[in-house]
Formats: sequence, C-alpha cells, structure tokens
Amino acid sequence: MTHEVLPNGSVIGILGGGQLGRMLAMAAARLGYKVRIFEPSAQAPAGDVAISVTQAGYDDHEALKAFALSCDVLTFEFENIPSAALALLEDTRPLFPARTALEVSQDRLVEKDFLNSLGLKTAPYCVIDAAEGVAQALEKTGCPAILKTRRFGYDGKGQARVMAASEADAAYASLNGAPAISEGFVKFSREVSVIIARGRDGRVSAYDPGENIHRDGILATTTVPADLPAMLRADAVLLASKIVTALDYVGVMGVELFVTPEGLVVNEIAPRVHNSGHWTQAGCAVDQFEQHIRAITGWPLGDGSRHANVVMENLIGDDVARAAEMAETKGVQIHLYGKTETRAGRKMGHINRVTGAA
Amino acid sequence: MTHEVLPNGSVIGILGGGQLGRMLAMAAARLGYKVRIFEPSAQAPAGDVAISVTQAGYDDHEALKAFALSCDVLTFEFENIPSAALALLEDTRPLFPARTALEVSQDRLVEKDFLNSLGLKTAPYCVIDAAEGVAQALEKTGCPAILKTRRFGYDGKGQARVMAASEADAAYASLNGAPAISEGFVKFSREVSVIIARGRDGRVSAYDPGENIHRDGILATTTVPADLPAMLRADAVLLASKIVTALDYVGVMGVELFVTPEGLVVNEIAPRVHNSGHWTQAGCAVDQFEQHIRAITGWPLGDGSRHANVVMENLIGDDVARAAEMAETKGVQIHLYGKTETRAGRKMGHINRVTGAA
Repeated sequence: MTHEVLPNGSVIGILGGGQLGRMLAMAAARLGYKVRIFEPSAQAPAGDVAISVTQAGYDDHEALKAFALSCDVLTFEFENIPSAALALLEDTRPLFPARTALEVSQDRLVEKDFLNSLGLKTAPYCVIDAAEGVAQALEKTGCPAILKTRRFGYDGKGQARVMAASEADAAYASLNGAPAISEGFVKFSREVSVIIARGRDGRVSAYDPGENIHRDGILATTTVPADLPAMLRADAVLLASKIVTALDYVGVMGVELFVTPEGLVVNEIAPRVHNSGHWTQAGCAVDQFEQHIRAITGWPLGDGSRHANVVMENLIGDDVARAAEMAETKGVQIHLYGKTETRAGRKMGHINRVTGAA
Repeated sequence: MTHEVLPNGSVIGILGGGQLGRMLAMAAARLGYKVRIFEPSAQAPAGDVAISVTQAGYDDHEALKAFALSCDVLTFEFENIPSAALALLEDTRPLFPARTALEVSQDRLVEKDFLNSLGLKTAPYCVIDAAEGVAQALEKTGCPAILKTRRFGYDGKGQARVMAASEADAAYASLNGAPAISEGFVKFSREVSVIIARGRDGRVSAYDPGENIHRDGILATTTVPADLPAMLRADAVLLASKIVTALDYVGVMGVELFVTPEGLVVNEIAPRVHNSGHWTQAGCAVDQFEQHIRAITGWPLGDGSRHANVVMENLIGDDVARAAEMAETKGVQIHLYGKTETRAGRKMGHINRVTGAA
C-alpha cells in the first residue's frame, strides 16, 4: 500500500504557540518535519522547539498570509481563530482540520444543533439573544443552569452559573452582552472523553476513553481505563466516530462526554489535541500529538491501542515545584511546558503515572 | 529529599547539531528547558527543535565564548571537540561530562590505557608513532589487525584492516600519517553495549545491555534483551559503572563490549548518548536522552528498568523511504531526523519495534 505522504523536511505551520503546539511540534520533529508557530501573544512555549515564531494577531492578514506561504501544511492548537483568518489560511495552503469543521465547534449553538442533528444527546440548551430572553431560556433549560457565551470560551471562561432565577440577570450581565446560550444541568455520574483521529483517507482511529476530574473548571486528572461498562465504551467510540465522519474531519478531536443513567451525553467537542489525551504519551505506541501530525500529513494513522494503565495529572500553578521530586518515582513521566512564570491556575506541565500493564 | 535542579526555562547549550543533539533537545524541552546548538556545518537537524543555532568552527573561540555565555549549562553530542575549545567552554559555564572524561575517550591509546588500569580487558593494542613502527606493532597485536587513528574516528572512519603483513604499509599510509594504534582482532560471539548514566550526586543508573549488529561498519540493529547469560549481564553493568565512577562522569555514556569465551572485552566507550541506546525510547519510562538531560541538570536519574522487548533498526540511506509503510505496523515507533538529503550510509532515522512485554 502506498501513501501520499508530505515529504521529509517539509514545514508544518501551527496556529497557536501554547503547550499543545509545543507537543505537536515535537511530534512533527519525530516524523522529520520542521514547524513554524503563529502566536498573537509574546509567550509561545511552542517556539522553543520550532524554527520560527510569528508574533502577530489573527486580524493581521498580511502576517497570516506570509506565515501560510512559508509553510507546506497548516493546523492549529487553538480553536478560537476568527473565520476571516481561517478563510485566508485555507485559500493559501492546505488547512487541517478544515475551516468548516472548526466553525461548528466555535459556536456552542451551532455545535449543539449539529450534535442533535446526528441523533446524539446534549444538555438541554436555548439561545439567548438579548437580556430579555434570559427568563424564557431558563424556562426551557431548567434552573440551575449555566449561561455560556456562544464563542471563545475555554477552561470555564465565559461562563456564569445560575442557581436560582433571581441570579439570572446578574449572570447574563457578567457575560458583557456576548451572544450566549443557557445550558441545563446534566445529572452525570462521571465525565469521560474520547480522543479520536481521522486521516486524509477517511480512516478513523480512537483511543480508549479516559475518565476526567475537573477542579475549579480546569482538568485535574485523566485516568485510563475509565470506569465504564464495555457497552458504553463502545458507544463512546462509535459516537465520536460519527462526529468526525459527519464533519469530514482530518486530525485529532477531543469529545467530552457525560455518563448518565440514560447513556452518554455529549458535553462538547474540541477540534484539536486535547488535555485529556496527554495520557497517550505513556500508554500508547503513537500518542495523540503524533497521531494528529500523521493525520494531517498523510501518514497512515498509528496504532492507538493502549498498553498501559495511566493516570495523567496536570501540574497547575505551584504544583510544578513538585516535579523533580515526583521524577524519582518509578513509572512517572514528566512533561513541563517551559513556562517561566508560575501563576495560579496556569497549566505548567503534567505527569503521566503508569499504574500497570493494560 | 530536595534536589538542586536547574530552574525551569534555563538554557542548555549542546555542542553538535546532529540527530543525537536533536533528540537531546526534545528531551530537554520535555523537562522545561530551552536549547541552543553549536554546529560547525551548515546542516544541523537539532536546530529544528532549538531556540538558536550558532554555525561556527570549534577553533572560533569568540563564537564559542559567546555561545557558552548565552547558556546556563553545556553538554555535547559529538565527542571530537578540540581540547582548547573544551577548556574555554569549561571555564565559562558548567560542562557535563567534564573535559577530563571526554579527553580519555578522544584518544584510543589513552582510552585503552585507562580501561586496562581499571583491570578491564580490551583488545591487544600497540601505539604506532611512525611508518617504521607498523611491523613491530603488528607483532605485538598479531595479524589480522585494524589500524586506527588515535583521534577523531567514528562509524568505521579512520580505520584500515590489515589481513596480512604485506598490506600493512598501504593500510598505514591510508591514515595519512595520523597518530595511530594497531588493534588485534578479538574473537567474539556477539557485541553488546551498556548505556549508563551517572548524576551530579554520583548515583548511577544503567539500562539493560542491548545486542548490536553492524553492517558496513555502521550500527544496523540493537536488540533487547541481548542473548547474554545473567552473570555476564551483571558483569556488563558493573564494568560500565566502574568506568563512569572512575571518570567522575556526569551524563550518559555508551560502553561497547565484545562477548568472548573469556568474558567481556571493552571495545570502546562513547562519552555521550549512543545510537545503541535509542531502543530506550520505546522500552523504558525515561529514555537515554532524558536521562542525560536529568544527569546534567541535577534532576534525579529516572527509572531505567525495561518494560518492553525492543528491536531498534537504523534507517540508513534509502531505508527511509519505507518509513511510512512501517508506520502502520503495530508497536512500531518512527523517528526521523529531518535530513532532507538522502545519501548512502547516512543515518536518516530509526525505528523501534516493540516485540513484547519485558
């Protein structure tokens, strides 16, 4: 079997210079590629392992164009890229995942409509177009609920809880008038996620679902295997497969799921490598970062089977001070992101602790 | 227990920009460090994953000094660095392994004298100071023998075989008058190597011996476990431990050994990460590259125990064309070095094939 593979030494352009870009860049290097980074902020951990960093905003179309022209293929580690920028990039060089796939996940309303159109379950939701619509939306989704901006939210940002109807107006005001939705609570026993890849040839490969625990709205740990009946495990993978196929998606996607008495409910999809897939670095022959690079460069997808049980633990803020101590423990793999300034709530690194053979 | 660890975000300077430097740079990034590369040639695969490349010769002391000053700690992937350069580097910033350790391995005569002084066995050897000394040297080492330049040889370069005494003068002439030794043949059943690390605190950690097969003077495959009785396995590790301790060595060293009916004979030592240790990327929680970075930055050494059986296969010259095809095989890990020009005999990458649990 032959593959049309992006030649050795080609340049992959990554939009976004954070830790996901950093780990993607290293995976790209393992497969013989060079990486360029585009990052609006002055901090680009990915730049340490790339041949160049362009510091410019997504509205600087001249810089975007020049960046795209200097690369052979484009991808991103950051999903909130404006549509105009995506269009420009896609017109200049192959972009994976494609703009259309990204746009679905950029808007919580579009995303939920899309998921429901596939017959998948989501939390009850209702669009809020203006302050006057809040009460009506809460009627539909029930209360308590969470108001979320339709766009540009991550790690709990752009969200406000409404525990009682009396809090609704203040909660909506905290979103500063951004288009929003109200989302009802889902009673779930646990949260799991599936990391799935789809190649340019349409083939799909999924990793085992991992079980996630959040703290203060930020992922704290992912554990594989997830405590999940075999049937739900299969459901999770089939459902994720349905999503990437419907989107004609190329690359790695993270699909967050709630486990409920009525089955799996999709929380959200992330059109990129995902924090809850970091365990694959210790548990699989080919990790999520290499899998993404393989997908977008035309390599065959790698073997996603899991050979080890792993607990991934994020090192957030001061946690990072414990890294050297933990490094002595058998089976512990350390990943630091090279961020010199430690801040509360900042993801500084993670560890993968192998807890046994799979 | 506390460790004095080089702070997150510090800069490691690597002398030599080849694939070993490239893989060291990625290991450094995993631990939160930035890397600068110093490389005389225009080709520096390691530069793809470093924050800078200084292209200058080892005799350009101004460039060397500026490079050293821009780093927090120095190391190398290339052992043939001139002594004056090493002295300058060591006077400017901490250098690991130290100059004295490196100098032992830079001269085949000094190396063999050192090994014998530790009570270790080597091939019979005799110095050749001039053409007139060749016959006498061959008398001492026997014939067939190999004439080797004392310095600056690697991958079979700077060597000439002498199968019969009549070939001796021509063989010596092919070395262009460089100081040389004659080395007698060792009758060995197999060649193994031990990759060993010693930390700044004097602790030592060795990986399981690997069994090496060479083709045309270049390493072709390394297989773990080596086909070696348990007693010799222990001997190999003890012997390697003796070497690094005697040198007060800090970092990773490769020790090549011949297995003979009379026990282990040391072929040579390489004061750096070693091609025959690439299997650790697939077989151990902490690979030789990270182990080296840990050693020189004051991290505790990682767990070197082997969890998988592995065959490492070098991709030499056109072999690299098969990489994408091999990438589909379960348990195969691909490592390409980003070299765009394929040449016969050139190391383009390697694969690690996991053949089972250890």
